[in-house]
Amino acid sequence: MSPEQRFEKLGLTLPPSPDPLGVYKLLLIDGNHALVSGHGTLKEDGTWIVGKVGQDLDAETGKLAAQQVGLAILATLKKYLGSLDRVDRVIKLLGMVNCVPDFTRHPYVINGCSELFANVWGDDKGVGVRSAVGVSSLPEGIPVEIEVLFKLN
Amino acid sequence: MSPEQRFEKLGLTLPPSPDPLGVYKLLLIDGNHALVSGHGTLKEDGTWIVGKVGQDLDAETGKLAAQQVGLAILATLKKYLGSLDRVDRVIKLLGMVNCVPDFTRHPYVINGCSELFANVWGDDKGVGVRSAVGVSSLPEGIPVEIEVLFKLN
Amino acid sequence: MSPEQRFEKLGLTLPPSPDPLGVYKLLLIDGNHALVSGHGTLKEDGTWIVGKVGQDLDAETGKLAAQQVGLAILATLKKYLGSLDRVDRVIKLLGMVNCVPDFTRHPYVINGCSELFANVWGDDKGVGVRSAVGVSSLPEGIPVEIEVLFKLN
Repeated sequence: MSPEQRFEKLGLTLPPSPDPLGVYKLLLIDGNHALVSGHGTLKEDGTWIVGKVGQDLDAETGKLAAQQVGLAILATLKKYLGSLDRVDRVIKLLGMVNCVPDFTRHPYVINGCSELFANVWGDDKGVGVRSAVGVSSLPEGIPVEIEVLFKLN
Repeated sequence: MSPEQRFEKLGLTLPPSPDPLGVYKLLLIDGNHALVSGHGTLKEDGTWIVGKVGQDLDAETGKLAAQQVGLAILATLKKYLGSLDRVDRVIKLLGMVNCVPDFTRHPYVINGCSELFANVWGDDKGVGVRSAVGVSSLPEGIPVEIEVLFKLN
Repeated sequence: MSPEQRFEKLGLTLPPSPDPLGVYKLLLIDGNHALVSGHGTLKEDGTWIVGKVGQDLDAETGKLAAQQVGLAILATLKKYLGSLDRVDRVIKLLGMVNCVPDFTRHPYVINGCSELFANVWGDDKGVGVRSAVGVSSLPEGIPVEIEVLFKLN
């Protein structure tokens, strides 16, 4: 099965492709890499999931929020590349969790995005290196922001 | 007009090229990329703009601080590359705003740097992908730190 | 002397090579680059150094924690590359310090890792570009997380 077919089979719905919140591009191709800007928790209705993990959201809801970020990234890939099949593999994720100072389960939260990518591109090519950290605030009050580096076919 | 000429026309003054604050290089060339270390709000007199956005600085002053970071990065580019004309394009920015936990306008703040780069290299080549996040503290108490990946001609 | 010989001469002990804390790889080779995931303060006994810098750890202890992160990264390099000699140079570090909001000595803390790398690969090839920032929380409550980009021979 192709990445497009694998995504189809998941039965998930993509949000609209996001607009930039400032002076930047959402995706840039550099050689055989596609760099994707920090994406947020964009919902199907165009609004954001907001809140701080450990205060407004628990780890499980935070993980779902990270999946929503992954879906927004897929929407960007489809808009700018035409198809998820143009991606050879996930190279790198930087996952930032907007959370309270004593939160410790950032890897669990960011898995919401990483598991989605593993489902789309497979357990090898869908999984890259990653850093997951806690930040004190994010644009629009979103709970998760993730930037990704992909390799293209 | 060349990037050097466009910068000249802006009528802005560069701070001195910064020294590293630790064991790192300010710029490293890797293939046809120039990687630039996290830069801070270095002023013309060699001191730093300090303070937390949302507490000591408002969003507008924070944006000016981000422009100052951009100027420090231009000073580094000129020192290590000789000329801004050696840069083909901006690939990626990571912008970190030292701010209070309920701050939400990080993209607006980091635009202070991104708009400067767009003025120097143009609306296409001066604009790359970007992540803008809120951090709880930065070296020396500066309000903004930005690292950049450029592509060279 | 080779990097392996230089490391040997330091008389330091490596922790066990870490396992991923989530859905990611610890190291990925992309062309002639090795990307290394965010690593933490893994000790020889397999537990973590935990605590917040400026509260539970001072800057000096934080620097030792950053050295421990560096040792964990070396353990990962040896596991996945076979030898430290396969690394040509350090390209880039992103160092995140879990600290109180008024902490300002992030560069000093991250030097704990950077000085280790400079000892292993030398003052030129062991030193790359770097950003050092303060974050409000990290996985497992560790005080330092560092991700690295290396160039391979």
